[in-house]
Amino acid sequence: MSGSGLPEGLPMAVPAGGLPAEVRIHEVGARDGLQNEKTVVPTSVKAEFVHRLAGAGLRTIEATSFVHPKWVPQLADAAELVPQLADLLADPALRLPVLVPNQRGLERALELGVREIAVFGSATESFARANLNRTVDESLAMFEPVVARARAEGLRVRGYLSMCFGDPWEGPVPIGQVAGVARRLHAMGCTELSLGDTIGVATPGHVTALLAELTGGGVPVEQLAVHFHDTYGQALANTLAALQQGVTVVDASAGGLGGCPFAKSATGNLATEDLVWMLHGLGIRTGVDLVRLSATSVWMAEQLGRPSPSRTVRALTHQEQ
Amino acid sequence: MSGSGLPEGLPMAVPAGGLPAEVRIHEVGARDGLQNEKTVVPTSVKAEFVHRLAGAGLRTIEATSFVHPKWVPQLADAAELVPQLADLLADPALRLPVLVPNQRGLERALELGVREIAVFGSATESFARANLNRTVDESLAMFEPVVARARAEGLRVRGYLSMCFGDPWEGPVPIGQVAGVARRLHAMGCTELSLGDTIGVATPGHVTALLAELTGGGVPVEQLAVHFHDTYGQALANTLAALQQGVTVVDASAGGLGGCPFAKSATGNLATEDLVWMLHGLGIRTGVDLVRLSATSVWMAEQLGRPSPSRTVRALTHQEQ
Repeated sequence: MSGSGLPEGLPMAVPAGGLPAEVRIHEVGARDGLQNEKTVVPTSVKAEFVHRLAGAGLRTIEATSFVHPKWVPQLADAAELVPQLADLLADPALRLPVLVPNQRGLERALELGVREIAVFGSATESFARANLNRTVDESLAMFEPVVARARAEGLRVRGYLSMCFGDPWEGPVPIGQVAGVARRLHAMGCTELSLGDTIGVATPGHVTALLAELTGGGVPVEQLAVHFHDTYGQALANTLAALQQGVTVVDASAGGLGGCPFAKSATGNLATEDLVWMLHGLGIRTGVDLVRLSATSVWMAEQLGRPSPSRTVRALTHQEQ
Repeated sequence: MSGSGLPEGLPMAVPAGGLPAEVRIHEVGARDGLQNEKTVVPTSVKAEFVHRLAGAGLRTIEATSFVHPKWVPQLADAAELVPQLADLLADPALRLPVLVPNQRGLERALELGVREIAVFGSATESFARANLNRTVDESLAMFEPVVARARAEGLRVRGYLSMCFGDPWEGPVPIGQVAGVARRLHAMGCTELSLGDTIGVATPGHVTALLAELTGGGVPVEQLAVHFHDTYGQALANTLAALQQGVTVVDASAGGLGGCPFAKSATGNLATEDLVWMLHGLGIRTGVDLVRLSATSVWMAEQLGRPSPSRTVRALTHQEQ
């Protein structure tokens, strides 16, 4: 095995039939990851993190969130961070979406030159209430003018849909209920839907069934992304099932940021490195340099003062010792 | 979510097409797991562990190894342990294989009433040399009389084949080379072959290709088992690929025993609990009670003085706090 970086010649690329040739990774570490870490990271470190992610070949990097600082103090510096990413925002090969909760957030993002946004919806009433203090209907009504204005400005708009498989209050979530909310976000003008397994309980057959319901109901598979959490270790198996259904956009978090392995609050984002190992092993192009990405996650773990929960990062790091 | 045990109604069972209705889990925690832990566990604790595994519904439990104590001091008490499992050995619903390296080990196992054995081969010359101090040919020659005598005694014989996907010295391992050694073990009389990804580098297309090569070459899929390590987080995605090829026997280690998450020596066995979560989510029967199994792994982690690396065990444990 090589002493630095990847084991020589590994992962061995053995394509499987019926899978996409290329996958776009939607990197969420800087937003979803850092939002769920206890440590508040300085703005300059965040800016360096996003630059390093771009340097590792990631082409879609969700940068931050314009939610009220009271709710997400970790990302209270969104308006300071975005100007530090001006060089990346100007790069036509890069996409740097930001999360906006409402029209005020959208206006702030537009002023700073953001060209892509995301809104964050829920498939369940319980989580809509807990996260947005609204019913599902009220939250969709709140998003509608945001999406309309963003689209009128020529922006891409991603619609996150959380609790698509299970909900901590409601248990299993019926596929028809999820598909109903998803179709409303799509009809509203969202250019992409990200189907979130927020508590990590999904299994591959459930993923296949939900995707079939949505594509059968008129949402093109090109507009669907999957967002899995590794809480029960299922994220990569679920990703494989989604790829087999034709999904080509997969969310992941560098180093598994946002999911400390031994913390009760673990959200367990799928680690981008674990995802890239599988995709490259399947001969699927991502544009990502796995060694540089892993080094970035080790660097960020040092900023946070704890090891990365990504198995691939740990394995590559142990090799280097 | 329920305060004790499984989140209510989860995992939700949503079967996928083309998968087996039932999977036999070959539980390796007491042998492969404990063999790779630093802590040497007292014989009475091992006996209790195997009994608890059986109590959790596992029906194939690899109990120990009759290798020379010099090589595996953790399992030096094999001859003391087996008599403490007499009640389980007498149960026709249970299978308790033990690893034997040679004829001397087989004779000791037979004297103690063992009814099923395993031999441990390698797909690569480098690992055959490192692990057995023999060439691949020499190791097969050593196994031949062992397998013949065991079969003559009416025993089932499992042939482990390690380094089936990558090797730490040789890098990627050609599929034809693996299939060649596998066919020789099969022709020798092994009733089951366990294809091991000893360093955890496999990806799903590679798994599919190797299985296709073997079944196309005359080894019935019913006689094939898969043994994945989670070193790079790929074990469960690889398992899904194997199920899609018709494999119905999957090796796993309760609580992920044998793979300490932050140790350099991590071998990263697939955790039985993570496997069971996926299988039950797919509506595949295993006979395992996930809550009882998880409690067993928590108990064993206490004996070892460190948390379980299984994500499912951690998630279920955190819920209970």
